[in-house]
Amino acid sequence: MFREKIKVLDCTVRDGGLINNHDFDLRFVRAVYKALSDAGVDYMEIGYKNSKRLFSPQEFGKWKFCEDDDIKKVIEGIESHTKISIMVDVDRVDIEDVKPCKDSPVDMVRVASYVKDIDKAIFLVNHFAEKGYETTVNIMAISKALDNELNECLYQLEEESKANVVYIVDSFGALYQETIEFLVKKAKAILKTKEVGIHGHNNQQLAFSNTIEAIIHGANFVDGTVYGLGRAAGNCPLELILGFLKNPKFDIRPILDLISQEFIPLRERIEWGYIIPYAITGILDEHPRAAMALRNSEKKENYREFYESLVGEDVE
Amino acid sequence: MFREKIKVLDCTVRDGGLINNHDFDLRFVRAVYKALSDAGVDYMEIGYKNSKRLFSPQEFGKWKFCEDDDIKKVIEGIESHTKISIMVDVDRVDIEDVKPCKDSPVDMVRVASYVKDIDKAIFLVNHFAEKGYETTVNIMAISKALDNELNECLYQLEEESKANVVYIVDSFGALYQETIEFLVKKAKAILKTKEVGIHGHNNQQLAFSNTIEAIIHGANFVDGTVYGLGRAAGNCPLELILGFLKNPKFDIRPILDLISQEFIPLRERIEWGYIIPYAITGILDEHPRAAMALRNSEKKENYREFYESLVGEDVE
Repeated sequence: MFREKIKVLDCTVRDGGLINNHDFDLRFVRAVYKALSDAGVDYMEIGYKNSKRLFSPQEFGKWKFCEDDDIKKVIEGIESHTKISIMVDVDRVDIEDVKPCKDSPVDMVRVASYVKDIDKAIFLVNHFAEKGYETTVNIMAISKALDNELNECLYQLEEESKANVVYIVDSFGALYQETIEFLVKKAKAILKTKEVGIHGHNNQQLAFSNTIEAIIHGANFVDGTVYGLGRAAGNCPLELILGFLKNPKFDIRPILDLISQEFIPLRERIEWGYIIPYAITGILDEHPRAAMALRNSEKKENYREFYESLVGEDVE
Repeated sequence: MFREKIKVLDCTVRDGGLINNHDFDLRFVRAVYKALSDAGVDYMEIGYKNSKRLFSPQEFGKWKFCEDDDIKKVIEGIESHTKISIMVDVDRVDIEDVKPCKDSPVDMVRVASYVKDIDKAIFLVNHFAEKGYETTVNIMAISKALDNELNECLYQLEEESKANVVYIVDSFGALYQETIEFLVKKAKAILKTKEVGIHGHNNQQLAFSNTIEAIIHGANFVDGTVYGLGRAAGNCPLELILGFLKNPKFDIRPILDLISQEFIPLRERIEWGYIIPYAITGILDEHPRAAMALRNSEKKENYREFYESLVGEDVE
């Protein structure tokens, strides 16, 4: 009953790092890696590979830079079949910081890109593919993409890139399942030599259902995070994905332990999840930055004023 | 772009009452009614009509019994087009307690029934229809219904009942969208003279997406609760429904105010929502009662042991 090609990628530490400047301590990251390994999760994305010329190691934690030596400290001594992934952003990475795959603990490099930057993304992804990595291109903010530009982007990815997977990324948590169906069918039709992936955000509690919808229409790479950890509304809860998939290699129980032991206490210290200002930006298909600012202000529960500030802007 | 026939029913006070023995105070219930009225919500379900011979008014609040006089105190002085609904359970109502519709502030009576009790439900719903009420039958625990029995149930409802609407109720929050599609299409095919409704539970964060799925396939009655309030994992958040529907008569802003002012403080006092033991019972298609017991125990965060207690039972 299960589709063996479906791969689960956990990006708890990478996406969660957007809340705390990528400053999870080694003990926590090892606990996540151990649980994912025991649960049979295919990939763990541990952070970003950012240039230290652009971002200061004094201001950000280790997982903003993902040095190979730091990754080795996470994985050493833990039995695992879980591969390690890192993410790079267009214009923020020094490609020479990434060693050939054979000399690195990293297995996969994912390039996050807006449609407008796809030529740069293709350059990057081909570079990393030539270094021996599995690669993906993650098309961010796809809910804002114009159809003709998205089509051109997908044809370019098919014809010019060595990416193994192209992800549909609902950055703003704005998409309903009709549009997920439309986008996955479109991507499958154009990307004949690549897999399609899905990365949801949970502003409207749709990350999990959109992931199911993408699977129904043929997506074989699905992203989740433990207990939905992630910036703002967070992501698709990994535990729900494992509860849904039928592949007997997956075991939900190590993830349940991890939530009990690490994520319930963590939720007391940092905030993410279904919170009305994030629902509002999702409904309006907007970046959550205004909602994040609201949550750090004294007006954090003043939802009407926030809503009206977003819908009341003049547009012409 | 909108489908005018879609009606939104809020059951915040009714389903939320399952957490606090139906003991919301008059001020709170009036605030909910005022906000729903201002938001253009079609129906407000205020509670159950239970027999006082079976349940003690000393043990339960007003909204377990829904006396007409108590309902009048809620609605008086508030301008509104929102109709009032009450729910009855098979074998728990004294039908003579329900006056003719013309003498009552109630507009709609909803009969909740398992498939096995459908003959009793049909008797009740016909009785209330004859008294002049709009009526529905809500088929509970539909995720456990055998297909042949559900078919017979739906044919009986079509042929023998005067119900205006038949609801699909995912009592355990177990259904994924494929099954919602299957059930709504089946119901639409059989129930040629009735509307189909959807009532979700949010154990797996699927109540909203399942509601959208049901709408896509023709359901015209949708249930929600403010901020998802409801027993255990709660229900489909009303604010997300209003954000999704396009009918200009709906206004989300009064609901945003209501959440700010009433539901954020309420959530500090009573628990509902996405909580792992409820996710587990949803994944396993089980009643949440064991999870509710766990949440009232010292082992409330011991998820693995809870999971194993449910999957480890001998079945033969």
